[in-house]
Amino acid sequence: MEKDGLVLTWTLDPQELESKFNSKTKAIILNTPHNPLGKVYNKEELQVIADLCIKYDTLCISDEVYEWLVYSGNKHLKIATFPGMWERTITIGSAGKTFSVTGWKLGWSIGPNHLIKHLQTVQQNTIYTCATPLQEALAQAFWIDIKRMDDPECYFNSLPKELEVKRDRMVHLLESVGLKPIVPDGGYFIIADVSLLDPDLSDMKNNEPYDYKFVKWMTKHKKLSAIPVSAFCNSETKSQFEKFVRFCFIKKDSTLDAAEEIIKAWSVQKS
Amino acid sequence: MEKDGLVLTWTLDPQELESKFNSKTKAIILNTPHNPLGKVYNKEELQVIADLCIKYDTLCISDEVYEWLVYSGNKHLKIATFPGMWERTITIGSAGKTFSVTGWKLGWSIGPNHLIKHLQTVQQNTIYTCATPLQEALAQAFWIDIKRMDDPECYFNSLPKELEVKRDRMVHLLESVGLKPIVPDGGYFIIADVSLLDPDLSDMKNNEPYDYKFVKWMTKHKKLSAIPVSAFCNSETKSQFEKFVRFCFIKKDSTLDAAEEIIKAWSVQKS
Repeated sequence: MEKDGLVLTWTLDPQELESKFNSKTKAIILNTPHNPLGKVYNKEELQVIADLCIKYDTLCISDEVYEWLVYSGNKHLKIATFPGMWERTITIGSAGKTFSVTGWKLGWSIGPNHLIKHLQTVQQNTIYTCATPLQEALAQAFWIDIKRMDDPECYFNSLPKELEVKRDRMVHLLESVGLKPIVPDGGYFIIADVSLLDPDLSDMKNNEPYDYKFVKWMTKHKKLSAIPVSAFCNSETKSQFEKFVRFCFIKKDSTLDAAEEIIKAWSVQKS
Repeated sequence: MEKDGLVLTWTLDPQELESKFNSKTKAIILNTPHNPLGKVYNKEELQVIADLCIKYDTLCISDEVYEWLVYSGNKHLKIATFPGMWERTITIGSAGKTFSVTGWKLGWSIGPNHLIKHLQTVQQNTIYTCATPLQEALAQAFWIDIKRMDDPECYFNSLPKELEVKRDRMVHLLESVGLKPIVPDGGYFIIADVSLLDPDLSDMKNNEPYDYKFVKWMTKHKKLSAIPVSAFCNSETKSQFEKFVRFCFIKKDSTLDAAEEIIKAWSVQKS
């Protein structure tokens, strides 16, 4: 898996994926739409994953917290709906991501009784309980929006529409300063190769990956913050991703305006 | 510290407590009103603790979550208000216990900046955030009740008044069936020596402490539940407490009515 291939036209490599499975593989974690890559897995890719899960009798923990945040030309599919997958899949959703209330730390898991009963044991002994007023608010939010799924005012429709404009604006902004953003299919993050900018990072501590230094430098000198992508990686893959940082575009327009000002001034300064 | 002494007229033994301190003692945890004992530490006892904390330069983490649930003849005192203690004390409070919303898992810590700043680091990296609507509701609740502290309707006054009636009812109920309840000064639990009841526990698994078996037996055969007190103990002190169980009396009157019926029938059956 070459880094350039991954970034620009990444599709799932069935052979590579199968090479990671063996008779001891108990479970895999799938994340679609993906954070931080913004990738939405298509039907063919999910079928590859489903086939492997069935072949190796593997559970699938499917993190679909950005399920409603999918942009034009893409469609979110639930792997639990693929033949043979319901009984081996736990699908995870998030009130925070679905209704823009991330601080509530409230979500749900969907799956067959024989899997969910074990999650209930974990829940009882870790989380224990979620606050009733938040659960009630979430139930009401679903109740309102499920009854108006075809209405543009439905939050499942209005939020991605609103965010797609912000995504496009952010992509153009980042391109204007010489960054190479990867246009996300879904979610509310954009990753971008920042190495072309080549700022002087000599005042940053040297014992950190490039993306950590870049982000600290940008926060300090440009007052713009982002997340180093290698923070998402294990030690084996870290070095492949340290030229990338993750920007978040679920921001008020006034915040994006401020980012635009910073980036344009930066661009002028460079040229 | 004899078990009988502890149960019936327990007061803090300054010598015993000092024997647990040495130059390596970094912090102690104080809990007043105490769960499960129901003890509210008095001024003299807190002064003993404060003197030891100062003498051994020890932090005091003071769990005061039942601070408002104190019954006639007792007064809750904050050890942080004792001379020399503010700068070494973190006082912990609970919205759940103060306003009867235990599922909210919301609370507060009060202390000097040099201690609280470290708690903030822990909070940032564990809890991370508490849901805004719950924080706002808590702030409003305080705002309402702090302005009417002398009013009987103030929750800080009305809740302990309401609970004192339930406590007294529960004490009489437990005595009526031959249990020996220890009348709590505060909190909403009563512990009781249940060994006199001597039920036939032969159908319970034998590899557990007496109180665990008793509680399981009572839940199964009497449909009345309680918590084994030895669950609160480490392995050294477990055996001293296994004749005690903890009953909760913050219950609807209809629930206490049901408990009364069960207990009266039990009493008749025994006689």
